[in-house]
Amino acid sequence: MAAAFAPAIPLRFRPYSTLRFLSLYPKTLPTITHRIFPPILLHHAPPIPRPTRFFCSAVSGDLVEKHSGELGNKVGEFRKKLKVADIKSGPDEGLGRVGQTLVVMGWVRTLRAQSSVTFIEVNDGSCLSNMQCVMNSDAEGYDQIESGLITTGASIWIRGTLVESQGSKQKVELKADKIVMVGKSDPSYPIQKKRVSREFLRTKAHLRPRTNTFGAVARVRNALAFATHKFFQENGFVWISSPIITASDCEGAGEQFCVTTLIPTSGEAADSPINAISKTKDGSIDWSQDFFGKPAFLTVSGQLNAETYATALSDVYTFGPTFRAENSNTSRHLAEFWMIEPELAFADLNDDMACATAYLQYVVKHILENCKEDMDFFNTWIEKGIIDRLSAVVESEVVQLTYTDAVELLLKANKTFEFPVKWGCDLQSEHERYITEEAFGGCPEIKAFYMRQNDDGKTVAAMDMLVPRIGELIGGSQREERLEYLENRLDEMKLNKDSYWWYLDLRRYGSVPHAGFGLGFERLVQFATGMENIRDAIPFPRAPGSAEF
Amino acid sequence: MAAAFAPAIPLRFRPYSTLRFLSLYPKTLPTITHRIFPPILLHHAPPIPRPTRFFCSAVSGDLVEKHSGELGNKVGEFRKKLKVADIKSGPDEGLGRVGQTLVVMGWVRTLRAQSSVTFIEVNDGSCLSNMQCVMNSDAEGYDQIESGLITTGASIWIRGTLVESQGSKQKVELKADKIVMVGKSDPSYPIQKKRVSREFLRTKAHLRPRTNTFGAVARVRNALAFATHKFFQENGFVWISSPIITASDCEGAGEQFCVTTLIPTSGEAADSPINAISKTKDGSIDWSQDFFGKPAFLTVSGQLNAETYATALSDVYTFGPTFRAENSNTSRHLAEFWMIEPELAFADLNDDMACATAYLQYVVKHILENCKEDMDFFNTWIEKGIIDRLSAVVESEVVQLTYTDAVELLLKANKTFEFPVKWGCDLQSEHERYITEEAFGGCPEIKAFYMRQNDDGKTVAAMDMLVPRIGELIGGSQREERLEYLENRLDEMKLNKDSYWWYLDLRRYGSVPHAGFGLGFERLVQFATGMENIRDAIPFPRAPGSAEF
Repeated sequence: MAAAFAPAIPLRFRPYSTLRFLSLYPKTLPTITHRIFPPILLHHAPPIPRPTRFFCSAVSGDLVEKHSGELGNKVGEFRKKLKVADIKSGPDEGLGRVGQTLVVMGWVRTLRAQSSVTFIEVNDGSCLSNMQCVMNSDAEGYDQIESGLITTGASIWIRGTLVESQGSKQKVELKADKIVMVGKSDPSYPIQKKRVSREFLRTKAHLRPRTNTFGAVARVRNALAFATHKFFQENGFVWISSPIITASDCEGAGEQFCVTTLIPTSGEAADSPINAISKTKDGSIDWSQDFFGKPAFLTVSGQLNAETYATALSDVYTFGPTFRAENSNTSRHLAEFWMIEPELAFADLNDDMACATAYLQYVVKHILENCKEDMDFFNTWIEKGIIDRLSAVVESEVVQLTYTDAVELLLKANKTFEFPVKWGCDLQSEHERYITEEAFGGCPEIKAFYMRQNDDGKTVAAMDMLVPRIGELIGGSQREERLEYLENRLDEMKLNKDSYWWYLDLRRYGSVPHAGFGLGFERLVQFATGMENIRDAIPFPRAPGSAEF
Repeated sequence: MAAAFAPAIPLRFRPYSTLRFLSLYPKTLPTITHRIFPPILLHHAPPIPRPTRFFCSAVSGDLVEKHSGELGNKVGEFRKKLKVADIKSGPDEGLGRVGQTLVVMGWVRTLRAQSSVTFIEVNDGSCLSNMQCVMNSDAEGYDQIESGLITTGASIWIRGTLVESQGSKQKVELKADKIVMVGKSDPSYPIQKKRVSREFLRTKAHLRPRTNTFGAVARVRNALAFATHKFFQENGFVWISSPIITASDCEGAGEQFCVTTLIPTSGEAADSPINAISKTKDGSIDWSQDFFGKPAFLTVSGQLNAETYATALSDVYTFGPTFRAENSNTSRHLAEFWMIEPELAFADLNDDMACATAYLQYVVKHILENCKEDMDFFNTWIEKGIIDRLSAVVESEVVQLTYTDAVELLLKANKTFEFPVKWGCDLQSEHERYITEEAFGGCPEIKAFYMRQNDDGKTVAAMDMLVPRIGELIGGSQREERLEYLENRLDEMKLNKDSYWWYLDLRRYGSVPHAGFGLGFERLVQFATGMENIRDAIPFPRAPGSAEF
């Protein structure tokens, strides 16, 4: 189907789709191979040549020849690039490199030409700090500055000697002797020095990482992601990629995006005749003609899939995108967001809470230690006091409160609530506010089917973790591991047990108590940076009416 | 739209969607808070109480009380679980722990009851090795063995003393004094000791990680993923989550999945009347009514998005799912696969090749060093010689060959090819085979628009890396950074420049030479494990007609 409707536009990404196969090793090398193989291999090869294991070819051109020129050259060594962060990081803030000749490549943030000297602030995105470059008129390439060619947003290559800075803002600066303009910046460059609003920057999502704020968000987001992997890897969890597309009937269809190849479109709105969609004779969509042979959706959670691996490998986690087709155009919702979902076997709700707490403390500690400059920026410009708040998370012990006890507290409270409290109700913001920064468990009837029923028969083993400003950051539960309870629950919820055959299998064959939680990664980024709008916590936010870039 | 069509089935995953907000700190703490806050915070709080930073609540139940029982208890400490891998890892293979009393929790692989002693092989998925447990009839819980309750696939808790093993297969074993059956295994358990085919196991994707092969694949896949992050993090790259859903017109629509909320469905095929889809008066689909207000698709590559961040942060990489709606039901294609796409600023094709080579060598070295047991398994059972092959990758120097030179070689070859060779043609398998394990660059006319044109005007700066058995593992290129060249290329390809406004902006404002590559992660898993079918290299494969689990 898809192929039939596809226009003759070449796919933007070819390499993966045009695969070629090599399944044979040559028994002997052809005579010309001395031109192909590096000598070192040939020397060791005859009389029974050892097959060379892999190769890298290049489509010709000056770029290759620039360094090599000869046929069958070796690929050069990969070296970590020297970046501003490398120069200025460390306790001495670069003083140890004073006297060195260095090259900086980056984008001009500001340029101040004074009578005898010009200051250029260059940023390469490796850190918040710019490299201040100081230049006299005798520097090579200075004419590009005189002619006004080098402006804010331009990319430059600049070489000089690192010297102690006269200014108070930085310890070192680059006394430049040569500047090369790499790419000029059109005067229409939208990110000039004047402050621009975040709303405006959302319309420039391709350029906003060049600002202080979004550069810092990107770096802290990256640090949180890596700390996430480190935490779980260090604790023996295996990363599992749960599927993105699912035709499993286990997913409730509400708030899910449908994934299909039935709709003919070239991306042009005009090119989508409705009568080209396959239909059955009763006027329904003929799902048998769709790519997966039945309706398929974007996942809302990898939990059920993670459970299958937890009951084989003990402890696993997912870290991948999940989706909600909720029509919520708010600063707190995304249609596409990344979620972290650990699942622990041989574990109960206490283990789950302990894991969630340790995880959060670990990643927060990681950014406080590794993203100092960015965190200072957020503390000063985005949310005053955020460093104290995050430090308290690392240092505090976390307390837990049961739903029943929370209700009891509220009933005893000498206060009239807009929403009256009684056992079984959903707690409202006012209640949560009353019990301060308190999380809440939820009424059993709104809990998903997989949560483990407690022995009181009324509550389930679930937990939420709330944090200031964000609200719920983590929601977790002990899963129902008992086959008969789970089947009863499915019956109660009028769900079709046959659809859940594989999920039920986990309870048929060596079932174990297990628990897990889900954490919305963008919520964590907000919590860690103080960014108010969740659309500023992800590079390219997706929301109703908005999937640009 | 989506909400209107959504059935009244509760979403399976509630926590994230039912968010509650807490935006205020209390000015003073209510009197009852001594029951909620841990004393340590209160002690430091008055007279201006410091707000407690976050909480964790639990919906009651015995599970919490088991450890704590009191209101406002602290969450327990999270400890790394002791697993079989921890016991048996290290050069002494567990001998250092002999004499310790240990608990193992896992799944029974085999049980052999001899006259006086019973051997149980327990696996917890932390490593390939089982823990051999030896048990006499005087052990507590032995009756469960006698009654035949404990069978292959059952989950157990077993305690004993670690002793030196009499057997030759392992250094240590557990002399058990107590066994508890956690979850029994129905006799229908499909993964019995007899070997089962991989085809069969694909229909049991929820249970196959309990086999040696798929457990090992999952662990090596995990190690490759973590090594990927480590490599890029150590080299100053920032992980970027490129968007999954895109309504950008930059994506070619062929082979893409459409993402929509226009189609009404509850997941029941019968429940999808075609006339419920919004249409315009000319009978086309009314995309304005869709979730994003226009046609939206699943991404085929994050490259263009990565470029926007590379031209701000210097070096970035993506690691996320990508999609192809190709109707290829082969052992080499997936509809959903994970891709790694680094993008390097101030870099040319040589830097790109050097990075690709260093990356591949790094991750291969990582698994050879960290997954020894699993790699020995693959070497013995899946692909003989794989360890040598991978070791050669780490040790070899990689050679490069230009397309022009490859053609020259082929023309000079004293051989008749089925497909005659001339400059500009696509090289075929036979040609690649002829030039041994040789990669190939490609004809300019099939290269995507973004690849940089070489000065010869005929070729582009692109590279492929081929590896034995897999074929192309990596495809990369230097991107066209020159605005006028890129615009001409778009014109040549009859693409609408307006759609590419943001991609062109990167060339308008501080453009820099940059390059990157894409690597299909499941191909890498295949390469590293020897698994022949790509559907066995990902937990839940998606292919035409198949999106189960």
